[in-house]
Amino acid sequence: MDSSKDYSKLCIHTITTKPWSLAEAVDNYAMAGVKGITVWQNSVPDKNFEAAGKLIRSHGLEIISYCRGGFFTEPDAEKRAHAIEDNKKMIAEAAALGAPILVLVCGSSPTQSMEDSRTQIKEGIEALLPIAENAGVKLAIEPLHPMYADNRSAINTLGQANDMAEYFNSKWVGVAVDVYHLWWDPDLEKEIARCGGNDNLLAYHICDWKIPTTDLLLDRGLMGEGCIPLQKIKNWVASAGFDGYHEVEIFSNHYWQMDQGAFLKKIMEAYDEHCL
Amino acid sequence: MDSSKDYSKLCIHTITTKPWSLAEAVDNYAMAGVKGITVWQNSVPDKNFEAAGKLIRSHGLEIISYCRGGFFTEPDAEKRAHAIEDNKKMIAEAAALGAPILVLVCGSSPTQSMEDSRTQIKEGIEALLPIAENAGVKLAIEPLHPMYADNRSAINTLGQANDMAEYFNSKWVGVAVDVYHLWWDPDLEKEIARCGGNDNLLAYHICDWKIPTTDLLLDRGLMGEGCIPLQKIKNWVASAGFDGYHEVEIFSNHYWQMDQGAFLKKIMEAYDEHCL
Repeated sequence: MDSSKDYSKLCIHTITTKPWSLAEAVDNYAMAGVKGITVWQNSVPDKNFEAAGKLIRSHGLEIISYCRGGFFTEPDAEKRAHAIEDNKKMIAEAAALGAPILVLVCGSSPTQSMEDSRTQIKEGIEALLPIAENAGVKLAIEPLHPMYADNRSAINTLGQANDMAEYFNSKWVGVAVDVYHLWWDPDLEKEIARCGGNDNLLAYHICDWKIPTTDLLLDRGLMGEGCIPLQKIKNWVASAGFDGYHEVEIFSNHYWQMDQGAFLKKIMEAYDEHCL
Repeated sequence: MDSSKDYSKLCIHTITTKPWSLAEAVDNYAMAGVKGITVWQNSVPDKNFEAAGKLIRSHGLEIISYCRGGFFTEPDAEKRAHAIEDNKKMIAEAAALGAPILVLVCGSSPTQSMEDSRTQIKEGIEALLPIAENAGVKLAIEPLHPMYADNRSAINTLGQANDMAEYFNSKWVGVAVDVYHLWWDPDLEKEIARCGGNDNLLAYHICDWKIPTTDLLLDRGLMGEGCIPLQKIKNWVASAGFDGYHEVEIFSNHYWQMDQGAFLKKIMEAYDEHCL
């Protein structure tokens, strides 16, 4: 890669290059000059998180986050308790990996009200908080686009995530800002400033919104090929005091079918052109 | 249809039974006991709106709205002026039809900022207002789900639509509440009460959100087959003072492939079971 480019804040989610094993991803990211990696649970199939952490660090990569906990909502109390146990395991996995943050996709259950789901999310985070603090792993509430309100998240705006984070008022709970979910929100600038001002802005995820979008889940775009105002949002995030990594998180059947080396090259070009 | 059921506030959008001509829709709705109809422009291919209005009224149906104007946003000023002219024609068509309301899908243009699009929407409505008043046709701003923020509407919450309607402070501008677009919003109850309290609640559209939703545009569900809390929202709308029609607006490749008579029967059963 061109050494004149600044990739010092570029992080890639392992799921972005899903066809690669963790070892392949780490090798290729490091060779290309990527500095950060966010690890998805399914990229460590042998569950040896300590070894995965060592492998990543030995290639000079920094681990930014671990994805993804949450899914706290469930009408059945026993199943809710089970979800909390799963999240405790994920906090331990994050700690073993050496990831400072666990990202939470909070959950939503269509057979109950959104209000009930939101209450259960609060209860879930409450139960995890001492575990997270003890493990030294921060919990990042990620608001999801309203098109995922049915069964993925009942937290659909940054305003809601900020409310939740401020309710806990703990350095161990904050929010993750993903442009894909939030770009349309007329309150976005204000809410980014709010979470930055409260030291709750833990993570920043980038990709793009394609026109047309042909699949609700697996048709995210590469930065620059859609309509998200990436420069504007990047500036809002910087103005809010965030100086962490810019994490490329793209779920895309289209890109997963490509040669992943060529895709990585495209990611780095797109990052250079649209995100710096 | 069972005469013990109350279909006195049931309205169907012609696009819901798109395979039917207007004459077929009118015949079948009237025979089934549907009382209201909302007319889409494409259901009057001969452009004879007076004749269409007469046909509808001769079957005892009430015309609730005309769909859909709007699409005001456009970076090019000449094209914006053209869009306003198109809307003026649609106001005249609504008046010829005898429809008291023109529904506005306001538009969004991905090559400019959302802020610019919102300004252009305001300018568009401003330009139409005297024409609408003169024609006796109300303009209903319909906020669209955030998944349509790319190129269909930069107005994506009821809060935004209420702000816009209150800015005009005219009996000729209000809002249309469609459960498909708004059900996820944590502020929905409050915003419905707000628009009802300001006499801005002009229309109420129903359908359901399927899980999974396989197409962003053409996979709406029949009431009861998804996760939208229809009873709850119906009660909020009633509490806000709305006593107008409940308009079934379903875009669905699945249902358009069915026999439309059988589909109409399903609509009426679903309305009876989930919306009364």
